[in-house]
Amino acid sequence: MENVNQDTGFGERSADMGGRMVNKDGSFNIRRIGIHVHHRVSNYQNMLTMKRWRFLIVILLVYLLINAVFTALYWLAGPEGLQGVDYQQDTWGQLKQLFFFSTQTLTTVGYGRINPVSELANWIAALESLVGFLSLAIATGLLYGRFSRPKAFIRFSNLIVYSQYKGGKALMFRLVCYKDDHLLMNAEIKVNVRIQTPDNTYRFYNLRLERSHVDSLVLNWTVVHPIDEDSPFYGLSQKEIVTLQPEIAANLTGFDEVYSSTVVARISYTIQDFKFGFKFLPMYFSKSKRTDLDLAKLNLIDQE
Amino acid sequence: MENVNQDTGFGERSADMGGRMVNKDGSFNIRRIGIHVHHRVSNYQNMLTMKRWRFLIVILLVYLLINAVFTALYWLAGPEGLQGVDYQQDTWGQLKQLFFFSTQTLTTVGYGRINPVSELANWIAALESLVGFLSLAIATGLLYGRFSRPKAFIRFSNLIVYSQYKGGKALMFRLVCYKDDHLLMNAEIKVNVRIQTPDNTYRFYNLRLERSHVDSLVLNWTVVHPIDEDSPFYGLSQKEIVTLQPEIAANLTGFDEVYSSTVVARISYTIQDFKFGFKFLPMYFSKSKRTDLDLAKLNLIDQE
Amino acid sequence: MENVNQDTGFGERSADMGGRMVNKDGSFNIRRIGIHVHHRVSNYQNMLTMKRWRFLIVILLVYLLINAVFTALYWLAGPEGLQGVDYQQDTWGQLKQLFFFSTQTLTTVGYGRINPVSELANWIAALESLVGFLSLAIATGLLYGRFSRPKAFIRFSNLIVYSQYKGGKALMFRLVCYKDDHLLMNAEIKVNVRIQTPDNTYRFYNLRLERSHVDSLVLNWTVVHPIDEDSPFYGLSQKEIVTLQPEIAANLTGFDEVYSSTVVARISYTIQDFKFGFKFLPMYFSKSKRTDLDLAKLNLIDQE
Amino acid sequence: MENVNQDTGFGERSADMGGRMVNKDGSFNIRRIGIHVHHRVSNYQNMLTMKRWRFLIVILLVYLLINAVFTALYWLAGPEGLQGVDYQQDTWGQLKQLFFFSTQTLTTVGYGRINPVSELANWIAALESLVGFLSLAIATGLLYGRFSRPKAFIRFSNLIVYSQYKGGKALMFRLVCYKDDHLLMNAEIKVNVRIQTPDNTYRFYNLRLERSHVDSLVLNWTVVHPIDEDSPFYGLSQKEIVTLQPEIAANLTGFDEVYSSTVVARISYTIQDFKFGFKFLPMYFSKSKRTDLDLAKLNLIDQE
Repeated sequence: MENVNQDTGFGERSADMGGRMVNKDGSFNIRRIGIHVHHRVSNYQNMLTMKRWRFLIVILLVYLLINAVFTALYWLAGPEGLQGVDYQQDTWGQLKQLFFFSTQTLTTVGYGRINPVSELANWIAALESLVGFLSLAIATGLLYGRFSRPKAFIRFSNLIVYSQYKGGKALMFRLVCYKDDHLLMNAEIKVNVRIQTPDNTYRFYNLRLERSHVDSLVLNWTVVHPIDEDSPFYGLSQKEIVTLQPEIAANLTGFDEVYSSTVVARISYTIQDFKFGFKFLPMYFSKSKRTDLDLAKLNLIDQE
Repeated sequence: MENVNQDTGFGERSADMGGRMVNKDGSFNIRRIGIHVHHRVSNYQNMLTMKRWRFLIVILLVYLLINAVFTALYWLAGPEGLQGVDYQQDTWGQLKQLFFFSTQTLTTVGYGRINPVSELANWIAALESLVGFLSLAIATGLLYGRFSRPKAFIRFSNLIVYSQYKGGKALMFRLVCYKDDHLLMNAEIKVNVRIQTPDNTYRFYNLRLERSHVDSLVLNWTVVHPIDEDSPFYGLSQKEIVTLQPEIAANLTGFDEVYSSTVVARISYTIQDFKFGFKFLPMYFSKSKRTDLDLAKLNLIDQE
Repeated sequence: MENVNQDTGFGERSADMGGRMVNKDGSFNIRRIGIHVHHRVSNYQNMLTMKRWRFLIVILLVYLLINAVFTALYWLAGPEGLQGVDYQQDTWGQLKQLFFFSTQTLTTVGYGRINPVSELANWIAALESLVGFLSLAIATGLLYGRFSRPKAFIRFSNLIVYSQYKGGKALMFRLVCYKDDHLLMNAEIKVNVRIQTPDNTYRFYNLRLERSHVDSLVLNWTVVHPIDEDSPFYGLSQKEIVTLQPEIAANLTGFDEVYSSTVVARISYTIQDFKFGFKFLPMYFSKSKRTDLDLAKLNLIDQE
Repeated sequence: MENVNQDTGFGERSADMGGRMVNKDGSFNIRRIGIHVHHRVSNYQNMLTMKRWRFLIVILLVYLLINAVFTALYWLAGPEGLQGVDYQQDTWGQLKQLFFFSTQTLTTVGYGRINPVSELANWIAALESLVGFLSLAIATGLLYGRFSRPKAFIRFSNLIVYSQYKGGKALMFRLVCYKDDHLLMNAEIKVNVRIQTPDNTYRFYNLRLERSHVDSLVLNWTVVHPIDEDSPFYGLSQKEIVTLQPEIAANLTGFDEVYSSTVVARISYTIQDFKFGFKFLPMYFSKSKRTDLDLAKLNLIDQE
């Protein structure tokens, strides 16, 4: 077989590699250890990729934290530091007034009813407004980074079907670009399979595809691997295929016009995702002068 | 014919595909259905691509809305919440004062004549100034995203002419980069045609071009498809061509130096856009030590 | 000759093309006419590429203009609109106070000594602070766009020399990346020449280079066109070369690591830039454990 | 030998090139002289690449400097310029009050207790708030530029080993992507060697690799140069290799999904980094359903 792929980046000794290569969500099933989390983790990346509500909570917590720190500093600067604070209130009430003054300084609202008079309080306020300044810069950068980050808006089918195809058999899965007015130009897909041999080593193969390139990915794309002489599945029964414990990993790349950038999407199918004897049903239909693409039908299969 | 293109990304059964592939404005003639609009629509993309005046109206409405919400909150916080409000006025007048205070807080102007004194009002103001902070970050990101978004400043001719060419016939359209000091480096064009066969299926062909690459696209470019043996139009009369209902779709890509990015432009011509027996007239002229490119002449054609 | 280049993007009839193709500064010698300047000019591009002091002047003028407009609006809102204005002063003095209040609102400083009290003045201030908000967003975008814009920090020699080379002749110019710690990865150069034939048409040729690719452009690069059988200058005397009125245009592309982007530089040499019988002198020297690259020597030539 | 590389961008006369080509940190061992530092240095690049704590110090110093300048201006505007300053204090105390007012204006906090009343002071404040405005824009751009800058998070082994390999010998080093959830798609490596010949010239060779491409660089990658007939080290003893004073420079490029950008990493090994007769030990291990990649083992070698 000539499609052995030595360049996957994965190891061949199954004793070294635990579990699947690629997780269902497209991330790799690798854990890094041995260096401090501080070096291993990219804060910027995390802030970019975390869910929206978590991001907002982080922002809110940082806001409260910075204000709490400066509240403590104003407290240490003493009661003569700020003008306009009502010192009739108890300690807790005074702290809250300092806290609110801090928020007014950090966000540069600066109403001015409470304002710094002592030198120390003035220095703290000068520092806090600079911190606010830089925080705004950072928040701007993070928010812009979040929504301008190129993403491939691609959904893959949950299943991979094994069905009749042109007088033989084929493996098929499909994918679709699900955002309005988005598309991938020059979409390319590359599909690898990892199988486990009886001697406990892994083998990697490129799966030859009926079509691995699409000029403009606007409709759904059914990726077809015909099981011919070049296929590692050639001549195998369903049972034998199961025994190989294949993991099929696909990489899709394309140029997204909205982001003016190359984007990447990834999927991995294990043997649990195989459906033998099924086929995909159509997803798009003519609708007078237009074509309707029904995204709800992405996983619609039927027995042959 | 060897130029059949299977990789267009479009389907071949004309019963499934309604109408033209690509609209006149370069968007694809596909509608997505079956998933919620929330998942299907990219807000960021919409904010990036909407017309300028619509964008400004959205900004203004969001500004009014946020302030209206906080006005309501200050109202709920009660009359002792804010100092400096004139409570002699009627309810409407009081609400307006709260609204203006809200704008001063959101934009972080914070004049301070009106300012929060109660704890609840202070919390609301602290929250509103944070919201203002983040809104500024978002507005910055959207505005930067809007004007830094790579665009191909290309105009295509409205028409495609069918004319004499080097002893035979050719289809020709032209295009021009219309912005001063803009140009496309390594411009590449790819032209497909979709024709309808008598048995109601679509066929796709690459149209072979006399030239599909230009080093620097600074002048106009007349794209020429000579109708030779490889052409799907070879040996056909004008009437037969009309019967095929051809749709010619072109994709132009190139590197834009101003954006340092690859940009894309697209056009589609249907049979209504064909002009048989016409030719394009020149668009540029020597003007002493310079060349003048007359963009008004882009669609200027003349009978042969 | 096999190096005829049909894909330059330039026209072949010298009656149509006036003067040189590419100006000394790398821009193209083309003027666009026929559509309104508003459509032809990209404001964003202009703000990105104008000189720093001009950019600052534009910012300053816009600042003054916006404040002048709002000053007029506050004036129209009447003397009861703002609190804290000294109406003892004459009209000019009052206008200046309104102007300063306007700057405090636009920049969201909001000291608050002067502040809006009437409804109309409050609306104007609410609008102005929103304008300030958006102006900050725009200024941020422009400034970031300016300094993050990928540029090729390349200087070309002013001259192109015609000198002895490996038993024959060659045309040579050189270039250098002049910024510390900048370099171009995978630098590629493409050199075209346009010559004028006796029948008043232009001919374009690719000039074959001894080397058109450099892995890492860190030192200077002498681009050498050996005048062999493939060269349009083969067998021509100095006088004959002058008669051809050659214009040599070069395009350099490469990947800049600092900007993580492909960058482009361009140069054009006309016959006035040719130096017959000269050669370039070395630009770099060993300096103990380091190499010194002397940028002042870029144009240093000597007679053969 | 056919792997001579003429396109490295480095010179061949060892008298001209001092020391190693590439420093241990991946920068090039070149110093630019002959033009003013102002033209040679890119401030933007420096602000982008300097260490975080240095960046913060620069920000702080600029903040103090701008405020110091405006403090001086307010001082020159005279005591009637600002309202609310306590002129009972000595000169130093007055200056500090002006300084704090300046910080409140620059950061647009604008409490308003101290505020400008004279025309001159108002103009200065109007200018300072504009400067603050633009400073915020610049700070935003720099901070965003800093954390959005594509970087290859790659570590190379400190050593290059010379060991047994498939019945012959090979040179090997390895590298790893050390950030969680980062990976390089389509990683490519290109390895050059520079050797010194007895006649004091340098020779450059491409080192042929067992594998120069990896689909997805998620685990470590051991780069192997088998010493066969094509290798410049073929048939040489350890002593002879040392005599050549080889410098091995490698360039790794790949597509980083988080930044959606091509990133580059570089390493250089000199003869001091060679370990003869050693081999690398494994870095990753199966851990139930996952693979653990131990980054602490990057430089772990053992005698053969």
